[in-house]
Amino acid sequence: MSSFRIGLAQVNCTVGDLEGNTAKILHYIDRARAMQVDLLCFPEMTITGYPPEDLLLKPEFITGNLEKLDVIVRHSAAIALVVGFVDSRDGLYNAAAVAYDGELCGIYHKTCLPNYGVFDEKRYFQPGTKAPIFVINGVSIGVNICEDIWYPTGPASRQASAGAEVIVNISASPYHAGKRDFREQMLSHRASENTVILVYTNLVGGQDELVFDGGSMLLDERGEAIARAKQFEEDLLVVDLDIEEHRRPQGPRIIVSQEAHTEPRTPIPARSVEIHDRVGEIYAALVLGTRDYIHKNGFYRVLVALSGGVDSSLVAAIAVDALGPENVVGVSMPSRYSSEGSRTDARLLSENLGIEMRVIPIEEAMDSYLSILAGSFAGTQEDIAEENLQARIRGNILMALSNKFGWLVLTTGNKSEIACGYCTLYGDTAGGFAVIKDVPKTLVYELARHKNSSAAREIIPRRVIEKEPSAELRPGQRDVDSLPPYEVLDPILEAYIEEDKSLDQIVALGFDRKMVQRVISLVDRSEFKRRQSPPGIKITPRAFGKDRRFPITNRYRSS
Amino acid sequence: MSSFRIGLAQVNCTVGDLEGNTAKILHYIDRARAMQVDLLCFPEMTITGYPPEDLLLKPEFITGNLEKLDVIVRHSAAIALVVGFVDSRDGLYNAAAVAYDGELCGIYHKTCLPNYGVFDEKRYFQPGTKAPIFVINGVSIGVNICEDIWYPTGPASRQASAGAEVIVNISASPYHAGKRDFREQMLSHRASENTVILVYTNLVGGQDELVFDGGSMLLDERGEAIARAKQFEEDLLVVDLDIEEHRRPQGPRIIVSQEAHTEPRTPIPARSVEIHDRVGEIYAALVLGTRDYIHKNGFYRVLVALSGGVDSSLVAAIAVDALGPENVVGVSMPSRYSSEGSRTDARLLSENLGIEMRVIPIEEAMDSYLSILAGSFAGTQEDIAEENLQARIRGNILMALSNKFGWLVLTTGNKSEIACGYCTLYGDTAGGFAVIKDVPKTLVYELARHKNSSAAREIIPRRVIEKEPSAELRPGQRDVDSLPPYEVLDPILEAYIEEDKSLDQIVALGFDRKMVQRVISLVDRSEFKRRQSPPGIKITPRAFGKDRRFPITNRYRSS
Repeated sequence: MSSFRIGLAQVNCTVGDLEGNTAKILHYIDRARAMQVDLLCFPEMTITGYPPEDLLLKPEFITGNLEKLDVIVRHSAAIALVVGFVDSRDGLYNAAAVAYDGELCGIYHKTCLPNYGVFDEKRYFQPGTKAPIFVINGVSIGVNICEDIWYPTGPASRQASAGAEVIVNISASPYHAGKRDFREQMLSHRASENTVILVYTNLVGGQDELVFDGGSMLLDERGEAIARAKQFEEDLLVVDLDIEEHRRPQGPRIIVSQEAHTEPRTPIPARSVEIHDRVGEIYAALVLGTRDYIHKNGFYRVLVALSGGVDSSLVAAIAVDALGPENVVGVSMPSRYSSEGSRTDARLLSENLGIEMRVIPIEEAMDSYLSILAGSFAGTQEDIAEENLQARIRGNILMALSNKFGWLVLTTGNKSEIACGYCTLYGDTAGGFAVIKDVPKTLVYELARHKNSSAAREIIPRRVIEKEPSAELRPGQRDVDSLPPYEVLDPILEAYIEEDKSLDQIVALGFDRKMVQRVISLVDRSEFKRRQSPPGIKITPRAFGKDRRFPITNRYRSS
Repeated sequence: MSSFRIGLAQVNCTVGDLEGNTAKILHYIDRARAMQVDLLCFPEMTITGYPPEDLLLKPEFITGNLEKLDVIVRHSAAIALVVGFVDSRDGLYNAAAVAYDGELCGIYHKTCLPNYGVFDEKRYFQPGTKAPIFVINGVSIGVNICEDIWYPTGPASRQASAGAEVIVNISASPYHAGKRDFREQMLSHRASENTVILVYTNLVGGQDELVFDGGSMLLDERGEAIARAKQFEEDLLVVDLDIEEHRRPQGPRIIVSQEAHTEPRTPIPARSVEIHDRVGEIYAALVLGTRDYIHKNGFYRVLVALSGGVDSSLVAAIAVDALGPENVVGVSMPSRYSSEGSRTDARLLSENLGIEMRVIPIEEAMDSYLSILAGSFAGTQEDIAEENLQARIRGNILMALSNKFGWLVLTTGNKSEIACGYCTLYGDTAGGFAVIKDVPKTLVYELARHKNSSAAREIIPRRVIEKEPSAELRPGQRDVDSLPPYEVLDPILEAYIEEDKSLDQIVALGFDRKMVQRVISLVDRSEFKRRQSPPGIKITPRAFGKDRRFPITNRYRSS
């Protein structure tokens, strides 16, 4: 039995930041070396960040990433590394470099390239075909990348049957609700069916619409998790493995170093991390996704329009947790249709959050539009045109403040509204980042309650959570005048959008046919609005955006 | 020597319109049968339209398309057909059905699946592996699909060496400038190197950002084009082929019908189609793309903001050619910075085009914003915030008219501006369709001159074409205050965006380093604006949109 000290560097990279990502990698190598780590693993495509999309088509970007790999390899004195990068010999490969003591010892090319959901890897990469074993300090290790580990017949099983004692998988696995549990179950199967120790190093951080949730882990040969890294935070997890038997590698193997570490090492103190509950996990994902989008794009301060409703209240709370109250500005923009309750609730929320609050009434602008449009609108009835004007005046005011002071506007629309097009393009959809665009309204309520209970006080006023939802764009307006109640709407939307169920299949779940027909029609016809809406954080198995690619011009109707 | 009458049904399908597309297919079958056609070929994925994107993930959509295939097959009495559809046996396939006299005789699965540029076929489809020969009325025919024909080693060469006398390729090949010529050259190589007659049937019509340009053609065994269908229009091209020798198929073959047609047929009159010149072709693509986007999305009338500049003048002219003058409304929205010349030019243009013109001055709305923002803006200098407010007021007015009357707003930004972010989000980018978003400014001028010369009169006033470009958002503003002259800017943009050249490589072409650096930085930093801009027609080899997938969060800087 020999001791092998393994490190999982769960780092938060930025796409394209070759310099910054490399500096971070070097920093983690130094930390791990100081802890006498045998092998330190970094996530998939650590050097480039993930996903770099069409940056991968730029030859100089690939060259730049290879130059950084050289720097990293040279920095591997007395430690072995697995680092994700992009290889470019005879085509592009999503690759893992194995380095030791200043030398590049070998390269693994990802075999299974995901090209579904948010993934486009076949747009860029060739699949690898080899699955060598690396012998590192006497231990036989199979290295593979992300998608490779999700299939029972993937390279992990070939590596295990060729004698690997440890499988190192480096990942950039995007978050959706419940994915951590799902992933742990899958990894547990993979470890136990192959009787290998499984070292899973995941990326952490937000990138446009994606959040990588970290939650790296280590599982033993029976498939039991023996160590876990934090969720939604950078982390360096170091674990001592007792390798019980030395298998003899059967297949091709690359000898990195034959000798096991023998000197005594300072023991690694045991640690445990808290696993979030379902709603807490989603909240944490929204906070990280928001913070990283803002900071990685060079912004510090954000603006949120506070209507006194639950959506904007939740977004402001998330923004405060992401950026601090000093970096969040609330703007209340009342019109003649805004209730006194809404104004009071918005003010109360801003006080609870400790944020600056500006009040900018929109009546004067509304009057001027009605005046200059009077000729064109003569003889018409008030309708959606006037309602939308109010929303667009608010959008303009937010953007004027954004342009003047350099603050980024957070939009506050939820997934139920955005699915149905119950929003005004260039109005409430105007802004840089749509924090809760993938959060159905029923979940918005759960998240608001979660915020209050985890703060152990009423941050979001109870009245905001309990009152009937209204856009307040005309007298007495209520959401239920336009949409089914959210408890009914949300399951219909989930069946249609996330599960690709047909009209008939959804009706068979027990919903009224006319209602389902109407909802489907609203979703189909509002694709043009979503196409022009800002990015926001994916938290469901299928978000709008890269995850669901629908034509705008589309005459198909479900039956 | 036997005579074989072949038909190319170059149809304009609508994505998702299974019913409408099928009706159109049946109509063309009837027309071709009446002309005693032996074999009628339809484009790739005729039944579903192309590209249906994630509609393909809906099982009911696939089933619906198979039901329509049945209808079409049953309609094939006394005629052979090749029709594009989606097959679903053991996975999804981009497929071609061969039918004859009411029977489905065989199916070909596309072998080469494009997954680059605007294409995502590996997201949906499995590649086919077989390349059978069909014997139709005694002639040996190899069928393949679009991308398959672009490779010398693709299925066409296997089919030819297995004895095919004719290769039928059915395509949905999107347009970019010059592609017709490029395609004809490629097809010519493929026909001559395989010594086969090549029948190339392409889709025609606009679908969101893509225009399929038609231009179907027939090439003889020496690679010479012997017949061409129209560009940018539906067409039924019928040609009599003299099959000189009957080769004996070597590989697997499917006997559809052994007997050649013998009765005398009414001869097909010879015809020739005009091939557009470079600029005329682009103009025609813009007209078709605009018409189809508007009509296929259920709109009839459009609004264009007329600034008196060349961009909006060109867009209005295209709209008139696409929809008729009665369906185009011009709106002039002057501010204190609008020159008298601009107002006059806009009015003159609308008279030349014969369109309705509304004048809605924006001063009053601007004053009201400045008043309600006075508190927030106190102590600040006038800057981009005030400039953008003007653009956004105009956007709001257009959208108010759109909402009130159901007219779709056409935006007028060109590719040079959009590349550099020289546009106001929710201002001049607000609208449903961005007609010239992929047209560089220097090409805008060429197109404007083309319009006048093809109309043989000055539709777009000469002064509009000759005056210095200005956004007129502040006194004395000129585009060259913010951007390099367009003759310099456009080649830099082309090198960076379309050719993925690095800063160093562009400087080596003879441009000033500081200027190139600035342009690249503008392009990199304005991705967030493009992500929220409306779709528009691709006319270059690399358009913004699905064609160029860039992260917004991106710290990479070219060197």
